[in-house]
Amino acid sequence: MTALDAVLARIDQNRDAAIERLFGLLAIPSVSTDPAFAPDCARAGQWLVDELNGLGFEASLRPTAGHPMVVAKAKAKRRDVPHVLFYGHYDVQPADPLELWETEPFKPHLSDDGQRIVGRGSADDKGQLMTFVEACRAFRETGDLPCDITVLFEGEEETGSPSLPAFLAANKDELRADLMLVCDTNMWNKETPAITTMLRGLVLEEVVIHGASRDLHSGMFGGPAINPIRVLSRIIAEIHDTRGRVALPGFYAGVEELPEDVAEQWRQLDFDPKKFLADVGLSQPAGESDRSVLEQIWSRPTCDVNGIIGGYTGKGSKTVLPAQASAKFSFRLVGKQDPEKVLASFRDFVRERLPSDCRAEFLSHGASPALLLPFSSEALARARRALHAEWGKEPVLSGSGGSIPIVGLFKKDLGIDALMIGFGLDGDRIHSPNEKYETSSFHKGARSWARVLDGLAG
Amino acid sequence: MTALDAVLARIDQNRDAAIERLFGLLAIPSVSTDPAFAPDCARAGQWLVDELNGLGFEASLRPTAGHPMVVAKAKAKRRDVPHVLFYGHYDVQPADPLELWETEPFKPHLSDDGQRIVGRGSADDKGQLMTFVEACRAFRETGDLPCDITVLFEGEEETGSPSLPAFLAANKDELRADLMLVCDTNMWNKETPAITTMLRGLVLEEVVIHGASRDLHSGMFGGPAINPIRVLSRIIAEIHDTRGRVALPGFYAGVEELPEDVAEQWRQLDFDPKKFLADVGLSQPAGESDRSVLEQIWSRPTCDVNGIIGGYTGKGSKTVLPAQASAKFSFRLVGKQDPEKVLASFRDFVRERLPSDCRAEFLSHGASPALLLPFSSEALARARRALHAEWGKEPVLSGSGGSIPIVGLFKKDLGIDALMIGFGLDGDRIHSPNEKYETSSFHKGARSWARVLDGLAG
Repeated sequence: MTALDAVLARIDQNRDAAIERLFGLLAIPSVSTDPAFAPDCARAGQWLVDELNGLGFEASLRPTAGHPMVVAKAKAKRRDVPHVLFYGHYDVQPADPLELWETEPFKPHLSDDGQRIVGRGSADDKGQLMTFVEACRAFRETGDLPCDITVLFEGEEETGSPSLPAFLAANKDELRADLMLVCDTNMWNKETPAITTMLRGLVLEEVVIHGASRDLHSGMFGGPAINPIRVLSRIIAEIHDTRGRVALPGFYAGVEELPEDVAEQWRQLDFDPKKFLADVGLSQPAGESDRSVLEQIWSRPTCDVNGIIGGYTGKGSKTVLPAQASAKFSFRLVGKQDPEKVLASFRDFVRERLPSDCRAEFLSHGASPALLLPFSSEALARARRALHAEWGKEPVLSGSGGSIPIVGLFKKDLGIDALMIGFGLDGDRIHSPNEKYETSSFHKGARSWARVLDGLAG
Repeated sequence: MTALDAVLARIDQNRDAAIERLFGLLAIPSVSTDPAFAPDCARAGQWLVDELNGLGFEASLRPTAGHPMVVAKAKAKRRDVPHVLFYGHYDVQPADPLELWETEPFKPHLSDDGQRIVGRGSADDKGQLMTFVEACRAFRETGDLPCDITVLFEGEEETGSPSLPAFLAANKDELRADLMLVCDTNMWNKETPAITTMLRGLVLEEVVIHGASRDLHSGMFGGPAINPIRVLSRIIAEIHDTRGRVALPGFYAGVEELPEDVAEQWRQLDFDPKKFLADVGLSQPAGESDRSVLEQIWSRPTCDVNGIIGGYTGKGSKTVLPAQASAKFSFRLVGKQDPEKVLASFRDFVRERLPSDCRAEFLSHGASPALLLPFSSEALARARRALHAEWGKEPVLSGSGGSIPIVGLFKKDLGIDALMIGFGLDGDRIHSPNEKYETSSFHKGARSWARVLDGLAG
């Protein structure tokens, strides 16, 4: 029996106990965007610190201007092993709309058939990060770690990681490693693993349009008084052209075409755009009209409106002309698009559309560039072999529509590449009610990390 | 001393007691649009029933599908007097945003200088309707009523009077009168009375745009999935053309130009459009670019968006693509515009702009036509004389931007004209925080009604 076999066997023995441990973390409502849950975020961080200290890491909770970071370090006894930095996030999305949950979002449990772990954060990202922790546990319980390991868990990923840049800048040397490992992405399907090599960046920006100095009666002022909802609606309506392209000047600067071999691999994937849309009640792709659905979500930039509010929104009617209206925008970036330039172009776009009696207030909620992992990377080759061994299938080299701000920051500030291996599925309902994580993802995910760490160590 | 002199003297004696009585009504939070306040609406109605019964009316609370009506009748001893129907509404707008009130909205009180009655509903419409009740009290306490009087108070005016059409249809004979009197409009200024001869109609319509079957992660679906906020924004952006006109096909059918003499009277009024806008922090009229501000609010139709909501609207950000977005629209109608045709045109306009993956749900909150009182009316001439006697100035014959649904319905169903005399002021902040009513409006308003009733009786 090799050392790796012993580790895998121990992960199998720990299976049920690992799920119970995960439930403990999922029960903490660490919603990062709502200040009311700040104590829960700190509690989730401390839970992970305790867990990692119990595994022989040197772990601590590190304050930031927002929610705290978890930093933990452990060295292998063997020298000259690679040093990896594992990243995950313990914060979760708000549970609303609560009425659509079939069970309590923060009372985690197994589905009746035992195949799914249900609860907010089960897939994004608590279940995923615990696959790595469980792999470390099995190494510790059966012998030595195969690599030097630094762990970094943050609590603000769902809000665009506002505290991360300053934290990385202040702790560069401590966090430096040979390779970054990230578990916050999806498999291709339940049987086929994937390594994400392209990750979209993210700019989060809120706009408040101010008009009159107070709410007005629409009977008295309707007509002559400017309505901020109309001004905002026009901005939103004009931000895409008729072909679904984003109309901000300079928006596509830095967007590159896919290499032909990757484009061909994507065309060959068993991806059914009709089914992808039909699963959520849709039939027509609404993005750039000259791009495939896979390109639209993996390799093309977008602008989305994530929320809008203005005026009276209760039951019935109120004949009011509101003094303000606001909307939350997010931009997904690819290739070499510059988040700062996109932001500046957006603000100009808004200002150019303001009537003289309106002003715009901007609230930034984060900005990070996109990431592309070189296909020639040696770490990538080793990870592919490791995943093939666990799943019996070649992993898909995919793009991802979501954003993981730290990956771009590490690449930019420290020149460190990231290997993004995750075990989520498209149907996990992350950010939606009734979020779940496959029990098989959780168990084989831990086994996968054991193999990847072993493979990286050579 | 004439009978009228005695009545006016009695109103002067009752001055302070009348304010105390009004406070009792203002203290009841009869917010009609929010179902949570339904018991308070019923309580306000019963308060008026008790009050009118105490003045010798035969008054009762009459159930509807929504909030109840107050109906009260009293006959003069003298025969062959005119029969008037007085209308007002006991419901009020929601008090929100609460944080902007300097005092509790439902704890009415006098300002320190005694010149203003402060509280939600003080001007719209409880203070106004009580001017008529106080006039009736003085007639009763000093002698006979000069006219046969029917009183109708409704509790749904602020929500477009949804129960009113059915109630009128079911009680036509009981409510029939020679002339309708309404106290829900404004004076020209604090010293100059006004009679409103043009009243805009109102169509209230809510639209919910539905897209995907559930909220989606904008990273996973942003691009290919349609965003209902974008669809709704485009509809709102296109509903006005670049000249500020409403772009619904057929919208202006039935809109007539002002007679030249009225247009000239309006041009001569001491109305400063710059000041009108500057008072609410604005400088540029935002309505039809070829119309004066007075026309925009008195004699031209409009479309307003009174509220919009969709997606995540809490603090911070959430990368969600919402399954739906909704907006509340109101249309102010003039002349012979047909509310049903406007509604149908609007719905067609929305449907024509729906992508194939979206559907629109429509919620109607009321529809009523505009009203124009003939300038040749004998009642109008008598009312002008009565107001001139009280205020020492010729009353302004004005239009009004607000809507009073019952006036159009009575004209349409019973052929009865309405004399709209109100004592509100532009600065009363109706529908806004810190609503107030001038003490002089309340007191001289009651005296004005005494003179008008006396004048109508000849």
